[in-house]
Amino acid sequence: MNTTTYNLALLGFGNVGRAFVSLMERKRQDLRDQHGIEWRLTGVATRRMGWIAAPDGLDPAALLRGETRAAAGPHNVRDWLRAAHANVLFEITSLNRETGQPAIDHLKAALELGAHAITANKGPVVHGYEELSALAQKCGRRFLFESAVMDGVPIFCLFRDTLPAVEVHGFRALLNSTTNLILQQMEEGSTLNRAIAKAQEMGVAETDPTDDLEGWDSAVKIAALVTVLMREPLKPQEVERQGIEDLHPLAVQAARRAGHPYKLVCEARRENGRVQASVRPQQLPLNDPLAWVNGTSSAICFETDIFPGLAITEQNPGVTETAYGLLADLVRAVGAQKQ
Amino acid sequence: MNTTTYNLALLGFGNVGRAFVSLMERKRQDLRDQHGIEWRLTGVATRRMGWIAAPDGLDPAALLRGETRAAAGPHNVRDWLRAAHANVLFEITSLNRETGQPAIDHLKAALELGAHAITANKGPVVHGYEELSALAQKCGRRFLFESAVMDGVPIFCLFRDTLPAVEVHGFRALLNSTTNLILQQMEEGSTLNRAIAKAQEMGVAETDPTDDLEGWDSAVKIAALVTVLMREPLKPQEVERQGIEDLHPLAVQAARRAGHPYKLVCEARRENGRVQASVRPQQLPLNDPLAWVNGTSSAICFETDIFPGLAITEQNPGVTETAYGLLADLVRAVGAQKQ
Repeated sequence: MNTTTYNLALLGFGNVGRAFVSLMERKRQDLRDQHGIEWRLTGVATRRMGWIAAPDGLDPAALLRGETRAAAGPHNVRDWLRAAHANVLFEITSLNRETGQPAIDHLKAALELGAHAITANKGPVVHGYEELSALAQKCGRRFLFESAVMDGVPIFCLFRDTLPAVEVHGFRALLNSTTNLILQQMEEGSTLNRAIAKAQEMGVAETDPTDDLEGWDSAVKIAALVTVLMREPLKPQEVERQGIEDLHPLAVQAARRAGHPYKLVCEARRENGRVQASVRPQQLPLNDPLAWVNGTSSAICFETDIFPGLAITEQNPGVTETAYGLLADLVRAVGAQKQ
Repeated sequence: MNTTTYNLALLGFGNVGRAFVSLMERKRQDLRDQHGIEWRLTGVATRRMGWIAAPDGLDPAALLRGETRAAAGPHNVRDWLRAAHANVLFEITSLNRETGQPAIDHLKAALELGAHAITANKGPVVHGYEELSALAQKCGRRFLFESAVMDGVPIFCLFRDTLPAVEVHGFRALLNSTTNLILQQMEEGSTLNRAIAKAQEMGVAETDPTDDLEGWDSAVKIAALVTVLMREPLKPQEVERQGIEDLHPLAVQAARRAGHPYKLVCEARRENGRVQASVRPQQLPLNDPLAWVNGTSSAICFETDIFPGLAITEQNPGVTETAYGLLADLVRAVGAQKQ
């Protein structure tokens, strides 16, 4: 197979970025042999490190050891992408749920400069899907975002690439691992605060877990799924939202004992031509597959015109799965997939 | 979008064939508008009707009403495909689990004559996968078989098209709806024979359900999955196999009451470089997602190098889902998928 070398630029270099670089190293041979893809990192940018560009390639091992230092260089995303001769931008900064910015502008810059635009960030999907998709088409590049929901599980490509002519009528899902873990801790006797601390220790909950507890993270994911898979632009603010912060631990324990455990359930459904969406704690009977989704697992069950129920469950994912979504998007973007 | 008209030839016209023609009619506009596909049926062949070819197109409604009659015409598959000017063959005859014949020869004839070869039959996958894939590549056509396992759920394309560079280490699955339904009836007090009769009434079990009861149907599906997704040719005879025919209804009831219901579990796992595969009744704890798969539903949970557990569940499918797999394969084969 002919191979092509791609210059990759990472905007953001936290846990996902580090896992991505490690995974790319681990899969270097597969990417070359099965997909004709060679790669080098020619750009990394973070608030702390600044805009680092090295068109001949950075040393991934040095980068992972934290030994890469910025030289005097570019001062904005366009100069940086140009200096890095970037073929693909990986946008892995944190979410701005109100506007999706500045990630949207960064992804636009990449497309306009002829690079593929890949993100693990839900913001640009929720707030920029149509604009970025249209721009990508105009520029002959791809805007891809498989890691934005359910880590690297191919939810978006499942419908785009493998289920032609299927119409999504709605879905029910558990999409937030922090609250799932916290509810499980509360069932076992923890207070909310102790459960939060435990989820933080495990590296699952953020320092400030408000977005998870109040259902915002779920609402943003619902908005992304509805926008892309049900083709109806929906903003997180339009999702009817109730979090788990007011649930009493005794009620959570009693619900589990009674065989109707609480879960923070995401729902969306098209009714009379309009999509109704909500996230709220619900007591589920044990014959509901969502009742058995524990730990950091997540699950989604789609109702479509062809399949009355098609469910995908991801068991106990970690950061490698999110990193994998970026790798898979790279393969999709450069289109060298082996048939 | 530019549209192209494809001539479709159906070999076999039972429940799946009828559902396929109905579904193609229902999705006619989507196929044209979203995928640029126009179609007409130019050939139908069954043991009863003979080899019917009509290059200008048969009337699908008349065919569904059983009013299509054979004229003096072709007498073998090659003459028939030529007379039908077939662009795509849909091979939907019944399984020969020993050899996969004559389906393999029919699919080969299609590819050699320049038509895509699509089947819902597990036989050619298990016994002809490598040969038919190589022939398809040589002829510049596609050999596709998404309906062969789990109806139309895109199990094969999930890995081929959406999970690049992922290695399947193994899977656990419930793949036979007849036995699943029979076990459920037995839990509710039926004898094996009454449960079989009930499954036959529902149109799920065949007149002779031996292949399901003895685990052969599951073994063939396991062999197909291992051959394609784990890239190790495996024959149904090599699957360690035990059916449900010796389970006593009282044992089945007691197991359910004790919270460890019986399921006919398919398993495959690569150990020390070799794939071990089995199908046998197992008592599952209720925290195993497979324990909750009821009715005609099926489920598979993959263990991969990236995802420790990635599960797909299909709830209560019918014949339309199998027909859908053929439609989706058509879209994949002619490659006009909208991006």
